[in-house]
Amino acid sequence: MTNLDSVGAAPTGAGVAAGVVSIVGAGPGAADLITVRGLRALEAADVVVFDRLVEAEVLDLAPTSALRVPVGKGKGFGVAQEEIAQLLVFHARSGRHVVRLKGGDPFVFGRGLEEVEALDAAGLEHDVVPGLSSALAGPALAGISLTDRRYAASFTVLSGHRADDESYDWSSVARSADTLVVLMAASTAAAVCRCLLAAGRPADDRVAMISSAGRLEQLVHRGRLDEVALDGSPFLSPMTMVIGAAAAAHAVIGVREGWDVRVDG
Amino acid sequence: MTNLDSVGAAPTGAGVAAGVVSIVGAGPGAADLITVRGLRALEAADVVVFDRLVEAEVLDLAPTSALRVPVGKGKGFGVAQEEIAQLLVFHARSGRHVVRLKGGDPFVFGRGLEEVEALDAAGLEHDVVPGLSSALAGPALAGISLTDRRYAASFTVLSGHRADDESYDWSSVARSADTLVVLMAASTAAAVCRCLLAAGRPADDRVAMISSAGRLEQLVHRGRLDEVALDGSPFLSPMTMVIGAAAAAHAVIGVREGWDVRVDG
Repeated sequence: MTNLDSVGAAPTGAGVAAGVVSIVGAGPGAADLITVRGLRALEAADVVVFDRLVEAEVLDLAPTSALRVPVGKGKGFGVAQEEIAQLLVFHARSGRHVVRLKGGDPFVFGRGLEEVEALDAAGLEHDVVPGLSSALAGPALAGISLTDRRYAASFTVLSGHRADDESYDWSSVARSADTLVVLMAASTAAAVCRCLLAAGRPADDRVAMISSAGRLEQLVHRGRLDEVALDGSPFLSPMTMVIGAAAAAHAVIGVREGWDVRVDG
Repeated sequence: MTNLDSVGAAPTGAGVAAGVVSIVGAGPGAADLITVRGLRALEAADVVVFDRLVEAEVLDLAPTSALRVPVGKGKGFGVAQEEIAQLLVFHARSGRHVVRLKGGDPFVFGRGLEEVEALDAAGLEHDVVPGLSSALAGPALAGISLTDRRYAASFTVLSGHRADDESYDWSSVARSADTLVVLMAASTAAAVCRCLLAAGRPADDRVAMISSAGRLEQLVHRGRLDEVALDGSPFLSPMTMVIGAAAAAHAVIGVREGWDVRVDG
């Protein structure tokens, strides 16, 4: 079975002008942290193909009439990448405006570029609307500047999902930059910290772990590298971990509520 | 002379409730690549204090009646950081809604956090609205995914402005991540590439240099690390340089024109 079975029939295709596919970054979660260009694309959507990490309040920016197709890649469920590409091509060829909505930025640990290539190969019009990546926006919303000139002149971004495999040369990573940012670290934070300790990163290096960045339920845990390395408890997902002197910053960032996101009827 | 002389008198202060300061990232340039939250803050602004890298079309999102205060830090001109903080405090204490508008993201190679600390010290209400950093959005708008899983599992972000000083241990930087991103590299691209070559990064490593990302005048220069190292010509600013196998990607990203940015009267 392909997923096309579950999303309804296309309009009878003969003579239908192909639609456009917009690959849109939803940002870190709050609906008003999407870009204006992303909002406009969602408001014009006939079909929204969305990932597990996309918050309902962002999805709600699309018209009620839009078809919503979840293709979340969680543990044990999800739609294969090839099928996602087929789905985008199918709906665009049926003349629909398709939004492919991805959490954060579509090109940071997403497979947005592979989807663009599939659309190119199918000869379909497309555009990419970047979104705020949690790698940068997560720390910012917690009052942490990755490159605060008093502490840091560079930062490196990694994926916690790859902590267990051979993707990283930890001795290089440990020395790579003043600040390290680990995305998707909720279940691997302790393991990542152990790797960094073993690779020579100082035991008293500062760590900040930001869950649900920029939302009312935002939580920031702080500690030392050696403390987090010993902490086996899982953290709330999605979680962004910052390691380095810059992680010690304690500025209080106000979360402003009540901006009106929906801009037209 | 302080800059307060040039921005007009405050309302007579007695009894005026203090205003709020929003520190807003303008994103890479196009007006519709600001976040919805940033747009709302600009639309409500009485005063906009803005940097040199902010495009006029973003500034135009503020009401015509808003006071516009340039504090650009270009070569040979600009306002000292202490004076910028004084300016924000002065206008907020006068009851005005102040937007501090910075190019890209306010916390990436900006001094947004220092401004937040000054506002904290003054007891003023503030919030931070992240923006798309050119470090990520620049490559994305040029069809380059920093973490395309076929080529890369990590990226490191540096500042080209610091290429000449002692900020970087180039042997660590060269090995730090699969993909390197150098911001503000227009005048230092060749020097940065020479440092990376000397530190052992391969001569045939791919380089992409993206000027005016996401704008009609966007230019992408591509080459090998050893070629760029020998090229003394300056590149158009603002420019983001990407180094590594991921920089070879050639997906064509459509630049969609005509989204309506201004959402209410």
